[in-house]
Amino acid sequence: MNADLVIYDTTLRDGSQSEGVSFSALDKLQIASELDRFGVDYIEGGWPGSNPKDIEFFERAAGLEFQNAKLAAFGSTRRVDSPVRQDINLTRLIETGTPVVTIFGKSWDFHVTDGLCTTLEINLQLIADSVAFLKDHGREVIYDAEHFFDGYLANADYALQTLAAALKAGADSVVLCDTNGGTLPDHLVQIIQAVQNEFAQIRLGIHAHNDSDTAVANSLAAVKAGLRHVQGTINGLGERCGNANLCSVLANLALKTDQRLSPKIRLEKLTYVSRLVSEIANIPHREESPYVGNSAFAHKGGIHVSAIRRNRRMYEHIDPQTVGNHQRVLISDQSGQSNILSKAEQMGIDIKSSKKQVREFLDRLKHLEHLGYQFEGADGSLQVLLKKATGEWQPFFELVSARVTIDKQQQVEPLSEAVLKIRVGGVLEHTAAEGNGPVDALDKALRKALEPFYPSLKKTTLVDYKVRVLNSEAATAAKVRVFIETADEKSIWGTVGVSENIIEASWQALVDSVTYKLMKDTDDF
Amino acid sequence: MNADLVIYDTTLRDGSQSEGVSFSALDKLQIASELDRFGVDYIEGGWPGSNPKDIEFFERAAGLEFQNAKLAAFGSTRRVDSPVRQDINLTRLIETGTPVVTIFGKSWDFHVTDGLCTTLEINLQLIADSVAFLKDHGREVIYDAEHFFDGYLANADYALQTLAAALKAGADSVVLCDTNGGTLPDHLVQIIQAVQNEFAQIRLGIHAHNDSDTAVANSLAAVKAGLRHVQGTINGLGERCGNANLCSVLANLALKTDQRLSPKIRLEKLTYVSRLVSEIANIPHREESPYVGNSAFAHKGGIHVSAIRRNRRMYEHIDPQTVGNHQRVLISDQSGQSNILSKAEQMGIDIKSSKKQVREFLDRLKHLEHLGYQFEGADGSLQVLLKKATGEWQPFFELVSARVTIDKQQQVEPLSEAVLKIRVGGVLEHTAAEGNGPVDALDKALRKALEPFYPSLKKTTLVDYKVRVLNSEAATAAKVRVFIETADEKSIWGTVGVSENIIEASWQALVDSVTYKLMKDTDDF
Repeated sequence: MNADLVIYDTTLRDGSQSEGVSFSALDKLQIASELDRFGVDYIEGGWPGSNPKDIEFFERAAGLEFQNAKLAAFGSTRRVDSPVRQDINLTRLIETGTPVVTIFGKSWDFHVTDGLCTTLEINLQLIADSVAFLKDHGREVIYDAEHFFDGYLANADYALQTLAAALKAGADSVVLCDTNGGTLPDHLVQIIQAVQNEFAQIRLGIHAHNDSDTAVANSLAAVKAGLRHVQGTINGLGERCGNANLCSVLANLALKTDQRLSPKIRLEKLTYVSRLVSEIANIPHREESPYVGNSAFAHKGGIHVSAIRRNRRMYEHIDPQTVGNHQRVLISDQSGQSNILSKAEQMGIDIKSSKKQVREFLDRLKHLEHLGYQFEGADGSLQVLLKKATGEWQPFFELVSARVTIDKQQQVEPLSEAVLKIRVGGVLEHTAAEGNGPVDALDKALRKALEPFYPSLKKTTLVDYKVRVLNSEAATAAKVRVFIETADEKSIWGTVGVSENIIEASWQALVDSVTYKLMKDTDDF
Repeated sequence: MNADLVIYDTTLRDGSQSEGVSFSALDKLQIASELDRFGVDYIEGGWPGSNPKDIEFFERAAGLEFQNAKLAAFGSTRRVDSPVRQDINLTRLIETGTPVVTIFGKSWDFHVTDGLCTTLEINLQLIADSVAFLKDHGREVIYDAEHFFDGYLANADYALQTLAAALKAGADSVVLCDTNGGTLPDHLVQIIQAVQNEFAQIRLGIHAHNDSDTAVANSLAAVKAGLRHVQGTINGLGERCGNANLCSVLANLALKTDQRLSPKIRLEKLTYVSRLVSEIANIPHREESPYVGNSAFAHKGGIHVSAIRRNRRMYEHIDPQTVGNHQRVLISDQSGQSNILSKAEQMGIDIKSSKKQVREFLDRLKHLEHLGYQFEGADGSLQVLLKKATGEWQPFFELVSARVTIDKQQQVEPLSEAVLKIRVGGVLEHTAAEGNGPVDALDKALRKALEPFYPSLKKTTLVDYKVRVLNSEAATAAKVRVFIETADEKSIWGTVGVSENIIEASWQALVDSVTYKLMKDTDDF
């Protein structure tokens, strides 16, 4: 009976309620595709009734073919004052065309009388009407019982009646939501058992929030008590303190319980998926995150380090590779070495022959990482560095001077101009360009100066530009890291720059971008 | 029997193992004093055997008079090769002069044979000798059974023998440590019960780590099972994924269980203590932290906001004031009129009287949000906008012109200079400044120009600066959003700017920051 535990991801809907997180429709499409590949059973894509961005997402998602997951649209029971067939939100849910629709309804009498401002009886009718309407349209219907645990404590009979209304109308699953996140595990299990006594043989689920810092434990306790459907978000994104963190829930279930997860789940991609979602949300990935954090298997204390060198089990509760993470020994991190060697091989660069060269290169890399550079996703810069380490390095051009000016008169948008002097071979090139902002001006000037010498640069386009402030508490004097992605007709490469000066950081990344392209053309890799 | 639950804080010792955290002796003294005032029972100050900073801390702490807490020094059982009286670490523990000494010893047979490289029998002797030695010196001795849960699973008999050795030698309390953090609550409770069957009437404690994301739940489960001593750290600081977060443990115990905490605990200071520790550790305070985070009682969705305006219980599991936190209403594209009204009310601005004004303001806000502005966390900018909407708006200064120049010669770091012309009243001010990067130069020039007119600006500091690229696929011509946080002696406010030009976006946020401060001084809110 354990085999049918289903994982329902709501990163794109409830997760997008996180403070500071705002996914575009494109962001959502990218995350949905990754979640599908990762192997979750359901992906809740958004609330088409609440904002136009979600409508756009569902329109575009209709063109995707998922391998593992079913896409769900989310909404609420019908409004008190509109008949079900004329309810705009229910209509929009049908229009999304998703095979699954999830709707939430009220379980807490107080929310019915003081929130919806209607009677308990009418609320039961809202639930029944809405579920039946969606079933009539052939949808799989998941009913989220909002505030179920608080509702049960306030009026157990009524809370159970709301579930009965959804079930009688044909709901395929009923999910018990701890919407305010205030319930502790022991209490939660007691209430679940009471529900199970009332409703046998139905698929019950759990939706936990982390306001008491026990959302993961609550989800595990609910599954142990027999619930077969778990909702949560990647990294525990969500309003206030977030939702149950699916990364922790999944790893715990797979590695520490006898629950059988779907074999589609690719646990070894967990760390990747977790970091990707942070990247797309443009929030720092929490280093101390269980299982997937950069510090999760990092060892600092001297005793720990000498012990794990003898046997890693001593201070590691699991093998980090099972979740796609890796051990870090903070005093001597050797993990990069094999990656570096294989990267060099790919490029046809031979640094293997000289142990000293590899050592020097790794030291340089560590120093740069210490300064804030990050080479995951910046292959272009990494390969430029590698090439420079070989001793065969010849620069394609030299900077003599650069000046960027931003001029603003009163309330109008400022003008940005870059003046650039570079030397290619023996030739001095002095040029200038305007742009949408200083970095754009600099980019345009650099291309203008180089293209006469290197016409292949005309075929490159900058496709992505990202800025991350590294030590934001240093305020306007903070260090920033700039990532640039460039494409030509064959490939895409990333480059990176770090400085207290955003123009300088951007310049470094631009120079690496151009250099990588010219290296690629010359060495033909 | 519940009254004697004791709280043992190890922020200064185990918490200082967090990656990136390094407390000075002075930092530790400040935190210890706050923890004492807050009301914890024990403060573990450090490991005098492991580093000189901790020796300095204990020397200076000897001069403090604690009102509530007992100070504990931490160390390990004696070394295999030194007799107890000559053991340098035990001697140092005695020399600290603390009334309490906590030592850890091995419970896991594998750690004895493969870590200490000694026999199981000798390890029992190490434990007994060390505890007896400390008792002979009149100390209260707390024995931390390292890896107890893993040890129990590997060799239950032996793990229990190690506890017996400590107890027989006179240990006052025995603490079961889940050192690798791999144990889930149900398993943990089973093992605790087995220990309780063996040892009745002794004070047992729990020390949990968060590698499975269940450290808080584990601590609560242990207390529910009858353990009377809980160890943890403020904000869950600690190696890898951290220790049990005492903020969550304490709030849960006090507000959601029938456990009686010591009446000395001042729960209403919880948020303050939590943020202070982050401040001293110089790490960002986690916004989504349960109970104490800046987002813990923040409401974003329009439905939630209109509901909490009627009754805050609807979407808040506790009254935030009980833990010294407060409710926040966020402004976002998902929320409507009710968010604005309640925000204006908080600000003491009356826009309620004019429905047309509210509507116009909301339209303006939605337009700005559509352009990429985001007012969650940018209260300062929102308030400036609100003020402008009232019709009573008078600008504090006007920009005439600004020019920012970044000059770079070859490979050296560029120089940044800002030249600014502004008008205050009838007076024209023309000034210039250099900075670490163009935004810093602009900030410095703006302050230089304004401070003669508005001296209170001298008391403001920029405390945070963030950049987010909004449409990164537009590459270097992408639009960026800049967030700035500014503080004076009383409060912190956020401001926002959006433009394709990062200098322009930063300028907008800087201007709002200064304007908000001057508004605040004038209107005295």
